[in-house]
Amino acid sequence: MSGDSAPPPAMDGLTLSDAVPEAEFSKRVPIKSILGRPDKGAGLSGQKVRIGGWVKTGREAEKGTLAFLQVNDGSSPENLQVLVKSDVYKVSDVVATGTCVHVEGVLQRPPETATQQKIELQVSSVIRVGTVDAAKYPLPKSKARLPLELLRDLVHLRSRTNIISAIARIRNELAYATHTFFQNHGFLYIHTPIITTSDCEGAGEMFQVTTLINDAERLEKELKETPPPSEADLKAAELAVKEKGDAVAQLKAAKASKSEIAAAVSELTKAKENFSKLDERRKLAERFRLHGGIPKKDGKIDYTEDFFARQAFLTVSGQLQVETYACALSSVYTFGPTFRAENSHTSRHLAEFWMVEPEIAFADIQDDMNCAEAYVRFLCQWLLDNCYDDMEFMTKHVDKSALDRLKMVAGSKFEKITYTKAVEILEEAAKVKKFENKVEWGIDLASEHERYLTEEKFKAPVIVYNYPKEIKAFYMKVNEDNKTVAAMDVLVPKVGELIGGSQREENYEVLRQRILDLGLPLEPYEWYLDLRKYGTVEHSGFGLGFERMILFATGVENIRDVIPFPRYPGRADL
Amino acid sequence: MSGDSAPPPAMDGLTLSDAVPEAEFSKRVPIKSILGRPDKGAGLSGQKVRIGGWVKTGREAEKGTLAFLQVNDGSSPENLQVLVKSDVYKVSDVVATGTCVHVEGVLQRPPETATQQKIELQVSSVIRVGTVDAAKYPLPKSKARLPLELLRDLVHLRSRTNIISAIARIRNELAYATHTFFQNHGFLYIHTPIITTSDCEGAGEMFQVTTLINDAERLEKELKETPPPSEADLKAAELAVKEKGDAVAQLKAAKASKSEIAAAVSELTKAKENFSKLDERRKLAERFRLHGGIPKKDGKIDYTEDFFARQAFLTVSGQLQVETYACALSSVYTFGPTFRAENSHTSRHLAEFWMVEPEIAFADIQDDMNCAEAYVRFLCQWLLDNCYDDMEFMTKHVDKSALDRLKMVAGSKFEKITYTKAVEILEEAAKVKKFENKVEWGIDLASEHERYLTEEKFKAPVIVYNYPKEIKAFYMKVNEDNKTVAAMDVLVPKVGELIGGSQREENYEVLRQRILDLGLPLEPYEWYLDLRKYGTVEHSGFGLGFERMILFATGVENIRDVIPFPRYPGRADL
Repeated sequence: MSGDSAPPPAMDGLTLSDAVPEAEFSKRVPIKSILGRPDKGAGLSGQKVRIGGWVKTGREAEKGTLAFLQVNDGSSPENLQVLVKSDVYKVSDVVATGTCVHVEGVLQRPPETATQQKIELQVSSVIRVGTVDAAKYPLPKSKARLPLELLRDLVHLRSRTNIISAIARIRNELAYATHTFFQNHGFLYIHTPIITTSDCEGAGEMFQVTTLINDAERLEKELKETPPPSEADLKAAELAVKEKGDAVAQLKAAKASKSEIAAAVSELTKAKENFSKLDERRKLAERFRLHGGIPKKDGKIDYTEDFFARQAFLTVSGQLQVETYACALSSVYTFGPTFRAENSHTSRHLAEFWMVEPEIAFADIQDDMNCAEAYVRFLCQWLLDNCYDDMEFMTKHVDKSALDRLKMVAGSKFEKITYTKAVEILEEAAKVKKFENKVEWGIDLASEHERYLTEEKFKAPVIVYNYPKEIKAFYMKVNEDNKTVAAMDVLVPKVGELIGGSQREENYEVLRQRILDLGLPLEPYEWYLDLRKYGTVEHSGFGLGFERMILFATGVENIRDVIPFPRYPGRADL
Repeated sequence: MSGDSAPPPAMDGLTLSDAVPEAEFSKRVPIKSILGRPDKGAGLSGQKVRIGGWVKTGREAEKGTLAFLQVNDGSSPENLQVLVKSDVYKVSDVVATGTCVHVEGVLQRPPETATQQKIELQVSSVIRVGTVDAAKYPLPKSKARLPLELLRDLVHLRSRTNIISAIARIRNELAYATHTFFQNHGFLYIHTPIITTSDCEGAGEMFQVTTLINDAERLEKELKETPPPSEADLKAAELAVKEKGDAVAQLKAAKASKSEIAAAVSELTKAKENFSKLDERRKLAERFRLHGGIPKKDGKIDYTEDFFARQAFLTVSGQLQVETYACALSSVYTFGPTFRAENSHTSRHLAEFWMVEPEIAFADIQDDMNCAEAYVRFLCQWLLDNCYDDMEFMTKHVDKSALDRLKMVAGSKFEKITYTKAVEILEEAAKVKKFENKVEWGIDLASEHERYLTEEKFKAPVIVYNYPKEIKAFYMKVNEDNKTVAAMDVLVPKVGELIGGSQREENYEVLRQRILDLGLPLEPYEWYLDLRKYGTVEHSGFGLGFERMILFATGVENIRDVIPFPRYPGRADL
């Protein structure tokens, strides 16, 4: 930090700088546009600017007449040094960590003794301060970083830490890079549904979406406010119907006038309506007594009364739905949230996570692998080009190999080997190395096997393809050997499987038989089979777990720290 | 269409063209890269290419020795004319609408008599055909367009129609334009959660996300497979515990050996375990009998046993959550699905729809309005620049004014008037014009009022701001008059309200009082209040209904037709 500062230049006549334009929709110059210049802002000395941000660290100096603040506004990992003199603002009100400052001043070169900053801001007026009671602030100024586990209990404040904000910027860049990559290659972004009635991967792991419980609770409340009719009420209402009916019959028999009969019929109608209203309420009360208000039919929940008139779930993948668009628009992708109701407490699983799923017509498994490789390398190069400062931060504070790993992947041709070849390599390795899981043709590769291939054997990303049919999903294309399917997994150092994909079975008869062989019902898949029945096309696609990509890029260990609001068993804060 | 074609040039020696490169990850030249050229592809005559796509219309000619196909691959609204001779492929197998053709051939100029095409493809070999049984195909070749209502029953095939594919391309461009706009202005894309425990707009309209019903169904199945213990079983187990306990007591009293006592204690432990296992199953069976398997406590559903250990919902807006990032990273936005469990059957409401929600720190309501205006104009200009052919299609087939409306909005400065001024204008208008809803200061503007302002009074987009406090949400900033809040709505012709936004209340005490005044509990908002307690910042944001923007752009009448997989009461196909 700088010591004494040179006196600020006279402010008179200075207007807000054109050299560093303000953000178009807020009253501030992003700090990145000052410090992110090749000269680190040195050339802006003398410019008048407004900035806004939050104090990372602050200290009083010169007997409380001066505050030195390190201010960050989220535009980059770098802090601007800001000087506030006591004749401009109460110094003790701005030094607490977390304080928001919105200030105007002049950029100046710090004294020669300051080596860290090339530029600092001498505040001439304070627009607004959002104070912090340092004794109460949950993110205290501290040399030691707060553990990430602890920050998960402060999910509404943790974006104010250096690490979570760096991850947020990296995540943002990866998302925009994803769109840019696919748009550049002529893919259309398709919004596949979140709520789905296609239970294609087994209901056990899906969240149910329902209004039945809400309806039941509303019913309970209503029954409390207006109690259901008593037996006596119902009897009386029933009797009234009978009496009014008899009256009509008598009048008819007595050949009474039309108007007399009409009046009696109207009475009867009213009595009937009254009875059915009461009876309806009785039935509701009965339903509530029996099933807690959940409608049932033949002993099962009656989903025809649910919002969508059938059972609905949160999607586990947009693949099947996006295929309907690939079979019309050729190159498409979806990028959205997906869900698993697995009771997983690992550092690699979330109940809500984001997936990128391209789907390409007129493409086989080779095209699919080429696309996956190009996409992952594009993401890595994008971070190197657009997010180097944040990647330097991660490399310094989280994972020493993070930057090297990105450079390696951006520059590597991916190794492509068949599953059979992979098993041969692993069997060879098993002669000298101990795996926990036995290697033999037919197994699903374990994480230790995948890590061995990418981290030890090839020291590069590896794509394994043509897996045994038995361990893969029904929609994958059966190869000519009738033993393997055209599936592929992209394995990368640090996280193992990053991408899973396949060529899709485009033959109607083969696909239909695969569904039957797996003991699945045909009816829910009729629409999916239609894509093969009418103008079928060779097509392929894959899914990339977006959070896994962030783990891979940043080196962060726990997936709960790379998504803004993590959801997992027992936790869904905010 | 062309009549006789010139004989194809000799294929020998011709290789796939470099002039029109293939898509990088599929074996085809996108048709757009042929027909989308300024010369409509005329200059590519003589080039050898592969294309893939689906037959829009096909006909046999020259006594069945030639097929003329109009082929579309989704890359643009335009079809390529493709000629298949009977010595190359069976002509009758390729002419049916919906047939998928993957073919290789030479581009050639059609005869002078053809005026529609500047280029056509003479097929030299067929890579693959996906046939269609025309008698069964649900989307028959027809001059009359299928009604959009009917297409909603064919949600897996409707992307093959001209109108739905044009809407998909427009939707794609608007999504990418959204990201590009905010990224260009330094906003970070934040993924706010879909599953939320913040019930901030009233649970009545929210979908519940739960695994309780699944768990209950699993329990029911399990109880069927292994029936719960009978009363006698339980009694016997209870008795066993007593007997084993007595035995231990006797041995102790008799000062038996340690090993004898240990053995008896072990027996007792086993008996206890057995009893509690049976008792647990009895309780489950009882729960099932009483509440259909839904766990209850004190007469209420016991959500501590649900997946997230509390009641969870689908989000209605990412705003409150994204504010936590704006209060650290300054300029952020979220773009994702949001949900309403409203029983709305209108042409303007969906149960699942997408929202764009920017949030800007150091920004007041004026900045907010400027951002909304710039964003909407950017979207309109983007469509004119990147999607003109699809917009021409919509203008020709759906809404004659679609293109003019885009041009008008892209080129207009938005009118900005206060709510008070808007009411004055409407009161003036009401003297000569009949509104269904009475106009007076304090009302929420009805759709007819909004449409009058934007379509009749100003004939341009209008932003109305500073609404009465009473009709707006708790988080909006109270103005100095203490009567109005700094809220704003963007109104556009055709759809009325497109955007709603506000400056957020940044004063802790005022916000807290607003929550209390509305009778809301404080506890669920503690985290939201924390943003004002620690380093509060002036900030503003808005929400744009993405489907409304597409309705506005395309002129389509029903919102169910501008989202790939519409969800509304009673319907969630696929």
